[in-house]
Amino acid sequence: MSVSAALILAAGKGTRMKSGLVKVLHELAGRPMLGWPLAAAREAGAAQIVVVAGHQADLVQKRFATDTGIRIALQEEQLGTGHAVSCSLSQLGGLTGSVLILCGDTPLLTGATLQHLASEHAASGAAVTVLTARLDRPFGYGRIVRDSEGRVRRIVEQKDASPEEQAIDEVNSGIYCMDLAFLRDHIGRLGSENAQNEYYLTDLVGIAVAEHAGCAAVVADDPDEIMGVNDRVQLAHAASVLRQRINLQLMLSGVTLVDPAQTYIDAGVQVGSDTIIWPGCVLRGSTTIGSGCELESNVQVTDCSIADRVHLKAGSVLAESQVFEDVAIGPMAHLRPGTVLQAQVKIGNFVETKKVVMGVGSKASHLTYLGDAEVGRDVNIGCGTITCNYDGKRKHKTVIGDGVFVGSDVQLVAPVTVGANALIAAGTTVTQDVPPDSLAIARTPQVNKDGWCLKKRDNA
Amino acid sequence: MSVSAALILAAGKGTRMKSGLVKVLHELAGRPMLGWPLAAAREAGAAQIVVVAGHQADLVQKRFATDTGIRIALQEEQLGTGHAVSCSLSQLGGLTGSVLILCGDTPLLTGATLQHLASEHAASGAAVTVLTARLDRPFGYGRIVRDSEGRVRRIVEQKDASPEEQAIDEVNSGIYCMDLAFLRDHIGRLGSENAQNEYYLTDLVGIAVAEHAGCAAVVADDPDEIMGVNDRVQLAHAASVLRQRINLQLMLSGVTLVDPAQTYIDAGVQVGSDTIIWPGCVLRGSTTIGSGCELESNVQVTDCSIADRVHLKAGSVLAESQVFEDVAIGPMAHLRPGTVLQAQVKIGNFVETKKVVMGVGSKASHLTYLGDAEVGRDVNIGCGTITCNYDGKRKHKTVIGDGVFVGSDVQLVAPVTVGANALIAAGTTVTQDVPPDSLAIARTPQVNKDGWCLKKRDNA
Amino acid sequence: MSVSAALILAAGKGTRMKSGLVKVLHELAGRPMLGWPLAAAREAGAAQIVVVAGHQADLVQKRFATDTGIRIALQEEQLGTGHAVSCSLSQLGGLTGSVLILCGDTPLLTGATLQHLASEHAASGAAVTVLTARLDRPFGYGRIVRDSEGRVRRIVEQKDASPEEQAIDEVNSGIYCMDLAFLRDHIGRLGSENAQNEYYLTDLVGIAVAEHAGCAAVVADDPDEIMGVNDRVQLAHAASVLRQRINLQLMLSGVTLVDPAQTYIDAGVQVGSDTIIWPGCVLRGSTTIGSGCELESNVQVTDCSIADRVHLKAGSVLAESQVFEDVAIGPMAHLRPGTVLQAQVKIGNFVETKKVVMGVGSKASHLTYLGDAEVGRDVNIGCGTITCNYDGKRKHKTVIGDGVFVGSDVQLVAPVTVGANALIAAGTTVTQDVPPDSLAIARTPQVNKDGWCLKKRDNA
Repeated sequence: MSVSAALILAAGKGTRMKSGLVKVLHELAGRPMLGWPLAAAREAGAAQIVVVAGHQADLVQKRFATDTGIRIALQEEQLGTGHAVSCSLSQLGGLTGSVLILCGDTPLLTGATLQHLASEHAASGAAVTVLTARLDRPFGYGRIVRDSEGRVRRIVEQKDASPEEQAIDEVNSGIYCMDLAFLRDHIGRLGSENAQNEYYLTDLVGIAVAEHAGCAAVVADDPDEIMGVNDRVQLAHAASVLRQRINLQLMLSGVTLVDPAQTYIDAGVQVGSDTIIWPGCVLRGSTTIGSGCELESNVQVTDCSIADRVHLKAGSVLAESQVFEDVAIGPMAHLRPGTVLQAQVKIGNFVETKKVVMGVGSKASHLTYLGDAEVGRDVNIGCGTITCNYDGKRKHKTVIGDGVFVGSDVQLVAPVTVGANALIAAGTTVTQDVPPDSLAIARTPQVNKDGWCLKKRDNA
Repeated sequence: MSVSAALILAAGKGTRMKSGLVKVLHELAGRPMLGWPLAAAREAGAAQIVVVAGHQADLVQKRFATDTGIRIALQEEQLGTGHAVSCSLSQLGGLTGSVLILCGDTPLLTGATLQHLASEHAASGAAVTVLTARLDRPFGYGRIVRDSEGRVRRIVEQKDASPEEQAIDEVNSGIYCMDLAFLRDHIGRLGSENAQNEYYLTDLVGIAVAEHAGCAAVVADDPDEIMGVNDRVQLAHAASVLRQRINLQLMLSGVTLVDPAQTYIDAGVQVGSDTIIWPGCVLRGSTTIGSGCELESNVQVTDCSIADRVHLKAGSVLAESQVFEDVAIGPMAHLRPGTVLQAQVKIGNFVETKKVVMGVGSKASHLTYLGDAEVGRDVNIGCGTITCNYDGKRKHKTVIGDGVFVGSDVQLVAPVTVGANALIAAGTTVTQDVPPDSLAIARTPQVNKDGWCLKKRDNA
Repeated sequence: MSVSAALILAAGKGTRMKSGLVKVLHELAGRPMLGWPLAAAREAGAAQIVVVAGHQADLVQKRFATDTGIRIALQEEQLGTGHAVSCSLSQLGGLTGSVLILCGDTPLLTGATLQHLASEHAASGAAVTVLTARLDRPFGYGRIVRDSEGRVRRIVEQKDASPEEQAIDEVNSGIYCMDLAFLRDHIGRLGSENAQNEYYLTDLVGIAVAEHAGCAAVVADDPDEIMGVNDRVQLAHAASVLRQRINLQLMLSGVTLVDPAQTYIDAGVQVGSDTIIWPGCVLRGSTTIGSGCELESNVQVTDCSIADRVHLKAGSVLAESQVFEDVAIGPMAHLRPGTVLQAQVKIGNFVETKKVVMGVGSKASHLTYLGDAEVGRDVNIGCGTITCNYDGKRKHKTVIGDGVFVGSDVQLVAPVTVGANALIAAGTTVTQDVPPDSLAIARTPQVNKDGWCLKKRDNA
């Protein structure tokens, strides 16, 4: 029996983050913190997800607004984990089965561990199954007290623990799988008669034991998984672990990372085999990279689709662009959103493109800006070419036909069309359309004033 | 009773550095090596600092010339640590109280440890207090021999140590707090009858014990702190530890470092909360970064003042510039010294600025060089604009008024002034001033030679 | 007696690499994997090298085609290590003495270890000497079974090992030094009656013992050295270790690596003392860097010769270029193949060069493309200068004499020659040669249309 749903507690502010942004929206490897346990819950089979938001609940809701499988429950006051759960149960309607209860600040928790938790929960028939971990330094955590047969008896907090209990190294993660019926029946019985005056979800363990409803525990293989992120040092550590996991999978699938410790790839980015990625590369968002590509050092790619055998040279920056097979880009090129480069296009150094389609085999090798343009096949864009797409108010379009040769330092004042196989002389400001097969030229004849420099020096 | 002064021994060459530069001037995290114990001494309350220089003493003096709290004592020959101290005592005049004696090559020593050393020294009333550390591998170090009551009896060098003494893991750091009166009275009694014919400061420990003047010892919490840097492997290690300390403080104060292991921030750089810094960034010198900024990967900032919510895009390089709120820069932009960007300015890719003031909301988005210029508010600098500020001999100034629209590929031959709200047509070489509200244009009409390319191909 | 030859087994595909390229050709720190044991064998004195290739033998042969000391033996079917050796022996002709037998996938093996193996082999007089290592986790490896006097008795595979033998932590590396006569006499006696139906070289150990020909073993100091690379995780780890070794040697020789963990230097690259290299730099191929240079962060240099006191600023990319003393380059400059920069040249930001010689003291400071050009001494190349070297079919040459001043936004339409001390006015398209000391200008006079912008706004 798999789990039906997950509740993710994400209402806290995260004071130690010292941030104007609620803790669970800080990013790690391309996802907000909360997105990690959320993805793990889904891997474990939870179809319905309820996020309990409090601080900046509006921002949390907005961040996940396009994800229709998520509902937001509002916890207006933060009165403890038990209170958080009671605020959210109504969102599950009459759902039956079991529910995962997770923390929004444990980004290292894996779907595999949650699957294990859920299946042990189902197998044991317990009302409550708690995820635990064995720590070298358990100080500060609630300890799992088991009886002589290994059954969970209770969870004792640090301050209440006897010396023998303090020696226990198995600790409570605050992550549970619970029977929904049990949860609904008993959540109202939690009290707040404690130092913090809060309702603690942990108390359900004691209730389950007292009522003989059964309480089981599953130990996480890797104690890192239950690590809560409370400040930016822990944030950086958790992000590093997540990147290592991503990079490990890519390497095992046939991607060469020259230095995986300096390679920054977001969750969800895909990379084909025999692609080589040099250090300092940053691959973000919904990026897909083909096979047999080379990304030289410090290439940054965001939300791009890159086909096979593409060569991205050092320091290039690409965003929201589509690059076909056998294209070479850079070094130090900049593809802005809306760039589409057909196969075998070459983009050289200090070239910027934006909302441009370039046809097969076309080249812009040096110091060029192409914006709002359609460029045909086998076009040569000379060094220093500029599409003057902006008149101070609106953007206009430049169309360049197949086989055109644009000389150096040409300005194309849009809107303008250059017909196929035309030639534009170096230095020309193109203000009118150019017919196919024509030469367009605007050039003042060169005058050499012989000896001018000698005279000037004499006069100086 | 706090310490009055510190002596820092910095006369050695540092042969294993294999360098033309004296060891203590090699840099770590933005400070010369010697600057680190110097700062620690100040944190511990030492108002007067005497640096004992020898090799390249002139360079040492020059490097710290602007720091009026430092005096340089010259140790012409290197005859040992005792000799170094005796060379420097006269610089303290009749100062009383206690003095810290430090090594110029221990950059990891902290002010907190020196404070602890000084306060223990004061509390114990000993003439000499030595800073010690416990090492897993004490071989090679002088060992601290204590009596059964834990009092320091003597320091025994490796070669003189009995097997029992060799088993001692507490070692001498060569760092002391001493009573100045005791030091002055006894420094002359050091002898040089040893293998190296040098005067060893360590011998004062034996003298203090023999004279019942008292010798105490304080163990450093972290043995790394007493690590001397002798070669560039140790230099790199120490620099890494210093960067980690800087980065840890920044993270705890609310700065997100995506990968603190690849973030290079000099001592003294300030960064506001909720600023995100991507890997490969290098922040140097007296740089200040505001809150809510984003520094994409591989941004290099030296001696700049950056306000809040500034976006520095990948690979940009900034030096000695001032950037106001909500400015966006890069990717791959270069701000050279004297650049001042008012709020909401936008500098795009492949743009270079130098001695330029740009007014609120102005933009230079692509492939531009602005040097020696004043640019007003709401100015649009077109792609490929160049201020021709250099005539081969002198630099001249370009002034551009508010609201000007500079078309693409415009050259402004300085000195030249463009009046407010003027428009400069694409491709124009501006050699005369442009009145306000005027159009400036210098353009040869475009000629299309129909079919020219066809004929050329036929002739080819 | 040193070794005469080495056999390197490199026929396997390396399935776990998930690659279209045979395993031993994957690169680490500038060498194909196979190149590392090959270099180690040469350091140990092996003059003749036979590489046993199988999968993609043609690619292996091609990759090492210029290395005349290497012969390729073809192992058409992969029938085990014994079979591999038997395929290769004929390549050694009648050579006598001893031979190293290595694996092509152990890039961390050092020449020093092989020298030690060879000299112990010679000293012991054994027919077979096996390189071993002591592992914390020996599971899976063949164990070295020694008798009570420490003599090697046999090698037992994991699956055949008794519990006592499984406790042995000394394992077989698969690397041997063998007497050639013994090898030739006995290789034919290997059988393939085993689970894999393969001929195992390991069986020669048993034969040597049985025949009292002698079998010795040498333990590698560092177990990493025998590590075989089987997937890209191991590839990345091995590359990291190799880079650390290279960087360690450079640091000890007087090079400052600001962060050796993020510095990527190929085997064979040379760097002079007191050169400072910032993080993210990548130095590849046959690059040589002089003394007293500074390489700012993220500089990439491939196959270049860089003289002393050169300053390579952030993000610059250089390939197949020659740079003389006191040159400054970048930031964000791109030197393409065939660039030669004489002393004191300055190349600024967003400048690209290709097949260019620049004379002493010349400058191209901003946004420039120089291709196929000869530039004299003390030339000033203005911002936005472009050599129009390509007419759509062929490349042509630009020659610029000493002392020329090229104004901004000048296009030089090659072939073209500019005489010494000439001046080219900003914005000129140069289509004819310019005599020495002359002014060349092609400029349409600027027209200011007063109030034009006001009228336009009124009409809008």
